[in-house]
Amino acid sequence: MHVFLQSRLVHADQARVSAFDHGFLYGDGIYETVRVYAETPFEWPAHDHRLRQSARHLSLACPWSSRYLLTAIERLLRADGRSEATVRLSVTRGPGPLGLDPALCRPSTLVIQSHPDRSLEALREKGVSMAIAECVRHPSPGSLDCRIKSTNSLSFVLAKMEARRRGVFETVLLNEAGRLTEGASSNLFFIRARTLHTPDVSCGLLPGITRRLVLGLAAAAGLRTLEGAYRPQDLLSADEIFLTNTTFEVLPVTELAWPGPRTGRRRRAVGRGRPGPYTQTLQALYRRRVLRRLARAGV
Amino acid sequence: MHVFLQSRLVHADQARVSAFDHGFLYGDGIYETVRVYAETPFEWPAHDHRLRQSARHLSLACPWSSRYLLTAIERLLRADGRSEATVRLSVTRGPGPLGLDPALCRPSTLVIQSHPDRSLEALREKGVSMAIAECVRHPSPGSLDCRIKSTNSLSFVLAKMEARRRGVFETVLLNEAGRLTEGASSNLFFIRARTLHTPDVSCGLLPGITRRLVLGLAAAAGLRTLEGAYRPQDLLSADEIFLTNTTFEVLPVTELAWPGPRTGRRRRAVGRGRPGPYTQTLQALYRRRVLRRLARAGV
Repeated sequence: MHVFLQSRLVHADQARVSAFDHGFLYGDGIYETVRVYAETPFEWPAHDHRLRQSARHLSLACPWSSRYLLTAIERLLRADGRSEATVRLSVTRGPGPLGLDPALCRPSTLVIQSHPDRSLEALREKGVSMAIAECVRHPSPGSLDCRIKSTNSLSFVLAKMEARRRGVFETVLLNEAGRLTEGASSNLFFIRARTLHTPDVSCGLLPGITRRLVLGLAAAAGLRTLEGAYRPQDLLSADEIFLTNTTFEVLPVTELAWPGPRTGRRRRAVGRGRPGPYTQTLQALYRRRVLRRLARAGV
Repeated sequence: MHVFLQSRLVHADQARVSAFDHGFLYGDGIYETVRVYAETPFEWPAHDHRLRQSARHLSLACPWSSRYLLTAIERLLRADGRSEATVRLSVTRGPGPLGLDPALCRPSTLVIQSHPDRSLEALREKGVSMAIAECVRHPSPGSLDCRIKSTNSLSFVLAKMEARRRGVFETVLLNEAGRLTEGASSNLFFIRARTLHTPDVSCGLLPGITRRLVLGLAAAAGLRTLEGAYRPQDLLSADEIFLTNTTFEVLPVTELAWPGPRTGRRRRAVGRGRPGPYTQTLQALYRRRVLRRLARAGV
């Protein structure tokens, strides 16, 4: 297995960064996760754009062109013989003296890693379970602009650890006002009365690239869309719930772990406990979109 | 220059960690900064205690004994011939597969770095300037327990960058409610009417080890102490202001950068624009405490 590090391919166990890299010392870095289908990075321009937007918010130098990064991804995948994969690109502040101030750090560090496509097909057919995170709230936009996809992911790590502890696939974080935001690694959607709801960006969340794409597919599925400030209780009356991200695509939630009165934790089925019709339609539309892009790319 | 990495000394430019270390990928790590006087780590038991407390909050394995860490620090300083230094100990989740879940990461990574004592003596005599951070608020305790000294420091990096941009030494962050919390890398104190004020831990801040020590010295300086929820305006009526941390010790603030009505930014002198008498007394008491500890350690 390989890693693209700065300007060259190295073996994964040789892929090392300086212990003085401020990405390591202070979480001073950003990243993107890109899904590759048939050797083709999906929605690359959107990921490339967001990477640069994140960098700009942090005044973080990102001197690599879009073309350079694409070529690096291609070389990485070819070296490992992967055509279906998830690729992570990280850009961090680079090595510098101890201390928060990045003024003396240089150059920025570039790391591109991949892992094989985790087969989520079975989960997409069956659905997953989800809970509201109880141990942690979403970082407030005031402390870190949510549009920055930074490597300061500790709140989400804690939410993921809670998911494992509670035996659910994903936890969704509330903001300080108790409104739904996003999952530890996904965006949240629910359907009620032919309307596709998703938490508004103003609730404090990273507006995912898959999220935007799915909102764009709603009309074709016969759904209105509404972005709002929702409470956990809104999920209880939902007909369907699903999660999205680059690797999940459209992942149905068929079970909610919910604290019940006096009875401790309970599991509640969403809808009939299996993926609902709208979710399945959106899955199909999403898949069609992927195939159309591949066709356009000549794959 | 050397670094203590996991179990051995390496040259600083050889000190590298895996690009799969979740400390690098997700900021999944903690640290401590310890001041060394005459080869003796000051307040070591308190730092060691907090390191383990941070680790416990994150269920992060920290298998190194206090004695092991002390010996590692000694070896590191001896290798570089340093007797006065600042030492940083980092413990991160270690290498694992891509993805937030740390379940498969192991072993934890230990990095111990040092830098020579930055001579702050001149600043301690003259005082520094400070501003309220405008670009960023303090991370809320709900999203990450403030008692965890984690490597998710991006909000503080942004606050430090703002300090540089505005030409001040330090910026102090407000919480979401607009109350004072702490500096990007320090705790904040101010004196008014023979009372030493400092933001209460409930405002959302890391209760520093130097902070606690200075609160303990207040009575000997003839000061009452009060921990509260303060507004920026409270600083305008302060007789004296100072910052503390392990390396700053007691660092007087003699100038505030303050947004003025219609006139843009203004500089306002604190007190008479030089370190006040209580601050100087606390500096002397602090220094005496250091010397007493060294004497007790047989230095």
